[in-house]
Amino acid sequence: MYQLIDGKKIAAQIKEQIAGEVKKIEQQHGKIPHLAVILLGTDGASETYVAHKEKACHQVGIHFTLIRFEDNVSQNELLNKINELNNNENIDGMIVQLPLPKQIDEQKVIESIDPEKDVDGFHPVNVGRMVIGIPAYIPATPAGIMELIKHYNIDTQGKSCVVIGRSNIVGKPISILMMQKKAPGNATVTVCHSRTKNIKELTLKADIIIAALGQAQFLTSDMVKEGAVVIDVGTTRVKSDKTKSGWKLLGDVKFDEVAPKCSYITPVPGGVGPMTIVSLLKNTLLAAQKKIYN
Amino acid sequence: MYQLIDGKKIAAQIKEQIAGEVKKIEQQHGKIPHLAVILLGTDGASETYVAHKEKACHQVGIHFTLIRFEDNVSQNELLNKINELNNNENIDGMIVQLPLPKQIDEQKVIESIDPEKDVDGFHPVNVGRMVIGIPAYIPATPAGIMELIKHYNIDTQGKSCVVIGRSNIVGKPISILMMQKKAPGNATVTVCHSRTKNIKELTLKADIIIAALGQAQFLTSDMVKEGAVVIDVGTTRVKSDKTKSGWKLLGDVKFDEVAPKCSYITPVPGGVGPMTIVSLLKNTLLAAQKKIYN
Repeated sequence: MYQLIDGKKIAAQIKEQIAGEVKKIEQQHGKIPHLAVILLGTDGASETYVAHKEKACHQVGIHFTLIRFEDNVSQNELLNKINELNNNENIDGMIVQLPLPKQIDEQKVIESIDPEKDVDGFHPVNVGRMVIGIPAYIPATPAGIMELIKHYNIDTQGKSCVVIGRSNIVGKPISILMMQKKAPGNATVTVCHSRTKNIKELTLKADIIIAALGQAQFLTSDMVKEGAVVIDVGTTRVKSDKTKSGWKLLGDVKFDEVAPKCSYITPVPGGVGPMTIVSLLKNTLLAAQKKIYN
Repeated sequence: MYQLIDGKKIAAQIKEQIAGEVKKIEQQHGKIPHLAVILLGTDGASETYVAHKEKACHQVGIHFTLIRFEDNVSQNELLNKINELNNNENIDGMIVQLPLPKQIDEQKVIESIDPEKDVDGFHPVNVGRMVIGIPAYIPATPAGIMELIKHYNIDTQGKSCVVIGRSNIVGKPISILMMQKKAPGNATVTVCHSRTKNIKELTLKADIIIAALGQAQFLTSDMVKEGAVVIDVGTTRVKSDKTKSGWKLLGDVKFDEVAPKCSYITPVPGGVGPMTIVSLLKNTLLAAQKKIYN
């Protein structure tokens, strides 16, 4: 019988810990950690994500400031605002909600954020520090996955781990974190992607599979060995007439058929998803505590 | 019959190209690319490496300045010198020869170098930019390997590549470069290390093996499949009564028995080694041309 990795439960537990830490900072230093979020336009998905982040901040007592721009804002105006927030001592962490409209150079925006406030962990300085293995803000999804692995005491050392997907925000960082010389970590990591010829052959041998390719229901039971750990990062929205919202989330894993073969598996929703916002809260807390840079 | 990857020959060819570019810069802009090397103490191996770098610079017409410190120099004094070089417009690139004596925090030294002059590519900014896939100074050894692969038109796309070793200067960066979405690249990369249980099982399936663990003669013929490409990064010095110097270099690959199974293989010496210094020259040229940062 497989063990369901309950991201919702773990996320709630960690939120309580964070709330405690936030209170401590307030009592000891008279300050409250503060996250600023910049949102361009009114895209539905982005609005939803930002609303979730706002709610989570309120739950743990982190100050949340939303800064809105029209989606035709100029790059200069945006960079000026980021610069202002960089220099604002009251702001501990800042994120710019992605994706950005076409007139904006996303990489330039990311690089304009002070690495010490880059709680998304997308700035090259934080990416590089993570790879080197020194303190860094870890991007939300890989950080959330590592937290789940820690909480369920899943043994990764010497295990074979297959990561499907090589994106900058999930595939590459999680592959680095899983291979680092520490625990959790120390796994033998293989990174597969669109050009990989024999994915099934590789996943069939994997002790741990992290599916992050963004293709709904990609991983089927014939691709997974008995006893594997399966982490599903996929969140493809599909229309559904069975939900109130009119859509539902599908993971990269065909859960119903894969789960019976697993030792551990994350559901979608309720697995990795809830952990990502917790990672953002945690990074904001670390920023306020000046624990990454000092 | 295997094809020997002649690093010495390719290095000589690229040096000629670089010499041409250096001349062009001089003619067009009246300036000569300039590399500064900081060396602490008089360790034999470090002296040899620095001497090779100096010679290579002279060969291609790059200005070379060696700055020496006693090995008991204080960290502050070293950082002050780095700061001075950061602000010196005549210096295009700078490296601090590693390893450093114990009183010096190596990571701090690396981070104090202006990323725009960090031609070793060890600064977190350059590491991060390389991972993200935007212009960056690539560390000498992985850059040299990619050059060899390019020059011999070795097909990496969709190939399985096993990297043995996860160091910050070879294993991690070459694994990232081999998986990037471009050519050469697009390989399915597995990173093995000291905690990997079944290295032989993995290498036996690999189309490309990059041995960078620093253990002399580790890779034997029973670990390699017919037709594999083998890149040997190892350079272990062992005593020898058959050479004038009294020592010889051993690679991580048992060349004599592995070579007959290979399609391509690098010798040691004369494979990856000569390419590393060329990478440094190339990075210095890129720095003078302001091609990475602008």
